[in-house]
Amino acid sequence: MLARADELAAISEEDGRLTRGFATPALARASDRVATWMEDAGLTVRRDAVGNVIGRVGAGRPLVLGSHIDTVPDAGRYDGPLGVLLALAVAERVAASGDGGSLEVVAFADEEGSRFGTSYLGSSAYTGSFERVWLDVVDGAGVTLRDAIRTAGGDPDAAVTAPVPELAGYVEVHIEQGPVLEREGLPVGVVTAIAGQTRARIVLTGEAGHAGTLPMEARRDALAAAAEVVLAVERLGRAEPGLVATVGALSLSPNVGNVVAGEARMLLDVRHADDRIRRRAAEEIRDEAERIAAARGVDAAWALRYDTPAVELDPRLRGRLVDAVRDQGLPVRELVSGAGHDAVVLSRICPAAMLFVRCAGGISHDPRESVSEGDVAVALDVLERVVRSVA
Amino acid sequence: MLARADELAAISEEDGRLTRGFATPALARASDRVATWMEDAGLTVRRDAVGNVIGRVGAGRPLVLGSHIDTVPDAGRYDGPLGVLLALAVAERVAASGDGGSLEVVAFADEEGSRFGTSYLGSSAYTGSFERVWLDVVDGAGVTLRDAIRTAGGDPDAAVTAPVPELAGYVEVHIEQGPVLEREGLPVGVVTAIAGQTRARIVLTGEAGHAGTLPMEARRDALAAAAEVVLAVERLGRAEPGLVATVGALSLSPNVGNVVAGEARMLLDVRHADDRIRRRAAEEIRDEAERIAAARGVDAAWALRYDTPAVELDPRLRGRLVDAVRDQGLPVRELVSGAGHDAVVLSRICPAAMLFVRCAGGISHDPRESVSEGDVAVALDVLERVVRSVA
Repeated sequence: MLARADELAAISEEDGRLTRGFATPALARASDRVATWMEDAGLTVRRDAVGNVIGRVGAGRPLVLGSHIDTVPDAGRYDGPLGVLLALAVAERVAASGDGGSLEVVAFADEEGSRFGTSYLGSSAYTGSFERVWLDVVDGAGVTLRDAIRTAGGDPDAAVTAPVPELAGYVEVHIEQGPVLEREGLPVGVVTAIAGQTRARIVLTGEAGHAGTLPMEARRDALAAAAEVVLAVERLGRAEPGLVATVGALSLSPNVGNVVAGEARMLLDVRHADDRIRRRAAEEIRDEAERIAAARGVDAAWALRYDTPAVELDPRLRGRLVDAVRDQGLPVRELVSGAGHDAVVLSRICPAAMLFVRCAGGISHDPRESVSEGDVAVALDVLERVVRSVA
Repeated sequence: MLARADELAAISEEDGRLTRGFATPALARASDRVATWMEDAGLTVRRDAVGNVIGRVGAGRPLVLGSHIDTVPDAGRYDGPLGVLLALAVAERVAASGDGGSLEVVAFADEEGSRFGTSYLGSSAYTGSFERVWLDVVDGAGVTLRDAIRTAGGDPDAAVTAPVPELAGYVEVHIEQGPVLEREGLPVGVVTAIAGQTRARIVLTGEAGHAGTLPMEARRDALAAAAEVVLAVERLGRAEPGLVATVGALSLSPNVGNVVAGEARMLLDVRHADDRIRRRAAEEIRDEAERIAAARGVDAAWALRYDTPAVELDPRLRGRLVDAVRDQGLPVRELVSGAGHDAVVLSRICPAAMLFVRCAGGISHDPRESVSEGDVAVALDVLERVVRSVA
């Protein structure tokens, strides 16, 4: 699996770094490689209308194993591909023994959404929930999603009209993308829920002025107001277990060293497994931003960009993962996923569960992404046990 | 004067907004206009090696009156030109009566430094302090200062070798660029000193991470650290009368909404008329930034970019301005200039003084710059009185 991850990592749109966007020639080459491996494992392979690669063994409602093979720009090699390669390795084992039941292994063609700014195109098409309006979205070069799908050999209309499949369940393995398992010295963890997200844009408008001539007491400094808001976000984020609250982007106008900032634009990201806690925290942040701005004679505007609810993963299927981890003689660590995954989309039509694999330093979306061979072997055994128990 | 300011404001490199950089065709046209006005006023006009326009009346060591006619991008019409037009109007009056002594009116060709990032090219050439190394500086289009001077009809070598002139003094009128005179209901104020400046770059390096998966307690958030520093700068700036301390520029990496910031780069600007107070404040800010960073496991790097000392303006020449303001029946308001001016350069070779004129809202470097006719009339009378008293 690690050798295959290396092989896929060499297939990129860019020289010297791994970038594989949806419907690009690089993704097509990676898909061909995965399809070949599926065939070698004895699976029956098909592509769907958006280019998801699907390998099948057995008859009847399948248990689906998979993840995605698109990447962010300058990506690591495990976020996505590891789940596909583990699914493939398990399918290879059970196809050989003939006792794994009905299985589908899927390599989704788009989860990151880096090219079109829309996540989950692959799993949406696979689950019959691909929306027609998405076809008019354009990428950075002005190409519509419709044309991109066509150019890549897919069928945009068929993506929209695809039926909802009947599935027995979905199990996805993914690197943790966080430091919890590493800190606790554990190879794998069972995901209980995928956190809901609030994303909002906060714009603070004060008044620009000359840094040399505008006395301190006459200022309406948008950056000073933004600084107070950033610290309030941090304080409120820390006040609630499991909550994360982040200002990751901040841009000033005019952003010149000798001019007091007139405007500060921030992006806020708040996540928690409990939607009430998350929404209450977002409201508190909004109130705090307004209070801070008012005290400084600065205007605060708040624009909600997303409010996606948390997804609780299926208790029975999770229970099978928990049992399988315990059967390995390992402590069971259950944890919440702060990041979104294809399992969010699959959970809408079937029981879904996820297993996290420890990754070095909690690093993801970065070439330094790293997993250990031993941890991957544990994940493989756990996944195989779940497949056999479902069968 | 206001009509002439309007006329100059129409001479721009850009349609629809006022931008007049050094050694541009727009500056040449504005210089021609000013030269014509000088000739009409009975002055003997010359251009020097960098394109400063100089009008002379009388013999012997001259009292110099002037300011600059270059502008920042999207400028107002009074920052610079007002001082030139007032000087011209006074020269017109005393040239007509023949009792103004020896006078030079100068329209400096570069004070803002917008094109080459080097301030005071005009007054440096005029005072024989133009440095040869500057000739190799390039503008945004890659043109060297040497070539720009040549293209504009000047002589770069002559600019470097120009002798230091013998001058009786220098008086500059300029809009305040701050809100003090407007707040106190005064048309003019006498500048006591031009504040010294500390400019520094502060770079805080934490660690980027996924906003959804990195727990709050595991973060080394560069923006949160920067926010604390911004508020410390504001607090220290407020703690000392006359001090201004500003973070006007802040840029994050990667600056993405769902990624904890790994790096924050800030530009700090600290000014005060007393160099010891300014330098102590800058040191305190540096200590505070290091303390804040250390407490968060973040690295702080400090790079001093300028440390320009304050300039005390000439007490005797200032006294003449004070007397002239009092003679108008007006209260005398003395104030420090937070911004730099050509008077900084002139003060190195002769007694220099400045008069500020109230400007609406303290606004400068903006098309909304505005002065009243009545205030300009007061400034004209004050400047004429000073010229006659020196004569």
